[in-house]
Amino acid sequence: MQRRRTLEGQPTRFHRRLAALGTIGQHPDGGVWRLAGSGEDGTARDLVVRWMRASNLAVTVDRVGNIVGVRPGTEDLPPVMSGSHTDSVRAGGVLDGPLGVVAALEVVAALDDAGVSTRRPVAVASFTNEEGVRFQPDMMGSLVYAGGARAEAALEAVDAEGITLGAALEAIGYAGTAEPGFLVPHAFVELHIEQGPVLETAGVTIGAVRDLAAISWTEVRIRGRAGHAGATPMALRADAGHAAAEITCFARHLAVELGGAQVATIGELEVSPGAINVIPGAARLTADLRNTDDAVLDEAERRFDSFVEQLGGRLGVGIETRRLARTRAVHFDVGVAQIIEAAARDLGLSCQVMTSGAGHDAQMMARICPAAMIFVPSVGGRSHCPEEHTSAEHLEAGARVLLETVKRLAG
Amino acid sequence: MQRRRTLEGQPTRFHRRLAALGTIGQHPDGGVWRLAGSGEDGTARDLVVRWMRASNLAVTVDRVGNIVGVRPGTEDLPPVMSGSHTDSVRAGGVLDGPLGVVAALEVVAALDDAGVSTRRPVAVASFTNEEGVRFQPDMMGSLVYAGGARAEAALEAVDAEGITLGAALEAIGYAGTAEPGFLVPHAFVELHIEQGPVLETAGVTIGAVRDLAAISWTEVRIRGRAGHAGATPMALRADAGHAAAEITCFARHLAVELGGAQVATIGELEVSPGAINVIPGAARLTADLRNTDDAVLDEAERRFDSFVEQLGGRLGVGIETRRLARTRAVHFDVGVAQIIEAAARDLGLSCQVMTSGAGHDAQMMARICPAAMIFVPSVGGRSHCPEEHTSAEHLEAGARVLLETVKRLAG
Repeated sequence: MQRRRTLEGQPTRFHRRLAALGTIGQHPDGGVWRLAGSGEDGTARDLVVRWMRASNLAVTVDRVGNIVGVRPGTEDLPPVMSGSHTDSVRAGGVLDGPLGVVAALEVVAALDDAGVSTRRPVAVASFTNEEGVRFQPDMMGSLVYAGGARAEAALEAVDAEGITLGAALEAIGYAGTAEPGFLVPHAFVELHIEQGPVLETAGVTIGAVRDLAAISWTEVRIRGRAGHAGATPMALRADAGHAAAEITCFARHLAVELGGAQVATIGELEVSPGAINVIPGAARLTADLRNTDDAVLDEAERRFDSFVEQLGGRLGVGIETRRLARTRAVHFDVGVAQIIEAAARDLGLSCQVMTSGAGHDAQMMARICPAAMIFVPSVGGRSHCPEEHTSAEHLEAGARVLLETVKRLAG
Repeated sequence: MQRRRTLEGQPTRFHRRLAALGTIGQHPDGGVWRLAGSGEDGTARDLVVRWMRASNLAVTVDRVGNIVGVRPGTEDLPPVMSGSHTDSVRAGGVLDGPLGVVAALEVVAALDDAGVSTRRPVAVASFTNEEGVRFQPDMMGSLVYAGGARAEAALEAVDAEGITLGAALEAIGYAGTAEPGFLVPHAFVELHIEQGPVLETAGVTIGAVRDLAAISWTEVRIRGRAGHAGATPMALRADAGHAAAEITCFARHLAVELGGAQVATIGELEVSPGAINVIPGAARLTADLRNTDDAVLDEAERRFDSFVEQLGGRLGVGIETRRLARTRAVHFDVGVAQIIEAAARDLGLSCQVMTSGAGHDAQMMARICPAAMIFVPSVGGRSHCPEEHTSAEHLEAGARVLLETVKRLAG
């Protein structure tokens, strides 16, 4: 059987390690709370470093806390790097992040177990603050590693309590000295759960991720006129909640009409004062628009902004919009993605080329080296919640494809 | 000038008393906090009773704390009663409630000042817990007074801290002994601010309120599927926030289409988990539908329920609705309303027949005697907020119409 031949004995260790990381920061109310730079993050990092040392990797911690462990190759070449992150969102799941780190560790352990040497070194990376929950922006460690932001700026990021990332890393012993980006990889591959329902719905085990959607975040604040629900005729209202609802419906309509990879989500929606018999005088919402085609996303932004502007006049409410973020689409390396596809095929696993709708460390690493990602199905498409789950079989399949991909890239 | 002839010298006392009540429970952050049965409510009641005694009214406090002060008539007949309440919402204004009490006190003071005797006694009432903020239901004192609920049930109502209304009244010295409804009026008239923009928009000073809308309150809970905003294609979503927005838009559409007195308000609207990049998995909203025509409101409820039910199937979300309240429309006494109209006309004041969209003590009193209301304009239609305001001229106009109406009713 393929599984036992390629990862003889390892599924047990692999699952044991995932479970061990999953216990760190488990909240009594459910879910993993392992925010970047927290004590829990520190404990998880300690475990990762211990596992790296157990595999005799040369461990380096850079100035923003990124951890890189290197298994030497037979030649002194840029390494093939794989990894992800150990920080979580609030009340998150056990797989988002740890899977990519544990699977990369499993790759080096499997190579060791099989007595395989590779021409290129193999590096395992665990990046700082991928989630961006406690410190902004997200994917911070890999962004700095890839030269997209200065280490100083990242270290000065401040959480809600006024603590800097620098101080938080110092406190948990991960304020390293190496310059981020000290090791530029030959290629980067990240295994991650899909976090969406596409693979599960299609009944496919492996996603070879070839691109990553551009993201546009907009905050919309609406100011109407609060009024008594009984005493204010419809014609005399300036209902901020109604305006927010019109925008929410339009966002959906817009995404469906543009079709393709376009998605639109109104994730935050608040009205105030929020009483059963008071017409909302104010409302706030956020719009998350994504597309793998930057030009179509530009068009979506234009149409969204134009709708919002016209709506203000039509409903007699004041509307202010603020663009919170706009990232460009990432097109991963076709060569690396094809190696992933071939590896899956050779292992007898179903595979489809797909897009990532979420952001990942791999998109930052794609700035400095050929990169791509491997996705495995998320049960119910759920992620960033305690119910986040992927079957053991799919987790192993992902790890096997990663091992095979790294072997082919490392030669 | 009419004003000086009918209320010689009194505008000053009238405004002074309104201002005095308005200082009780003023919060440093703005607004009046004088919840039913609170120490602030007690202080306001003490002032009202002192003013009643100053006018030699015979003061009675009933078992649920309603205060009634009676000025004798020349004959032993049922009295003409006027009044309102002194409790407020949280961070409310200075007029909602006190205006009706102070104006009724001003009526008896003006009769005294002018040496006028009436055939019927004139009674001033200040009812307990009209707002229903601390203890439910609202209009509690007048409801019990009119026989619509038992005194025992009202006294056992419990606030968020577990304190009963009975204990709260005891603490402020307003647990009286008279049986609510001990004095059944010949007629009841209440002066109140409109709390809506109708009179101001029409440029009219006096509203002769002939009916009061029926109210239907429904809570809607939607269960969809939370999902990643980037990783979940539009076709695979069950977006609870989108469903809530569709319902919000439909409610508006429904009210506009039914026309007439129909209004619809979605006052509370919450989505969860409420993160910019997460499709809302759950949502909750409240719908407030009102109409003066019960049959049309029944129709509005049917169409709302039917839309919600179909929407659940169409969007693949689970929707549960719960009817929180359904009151019937109140049709005030046409005779009393016509006396109000005639009084306004004779005083040279513009007047229009109108509907109350809000609930008032007068609707409860209408169960036991002919009743109607006098409205004066609310600046910007605002109420239940610190900005609640009516011009001095309009307040005086309302008080003069009340005086004239009471005189005509009392003979």
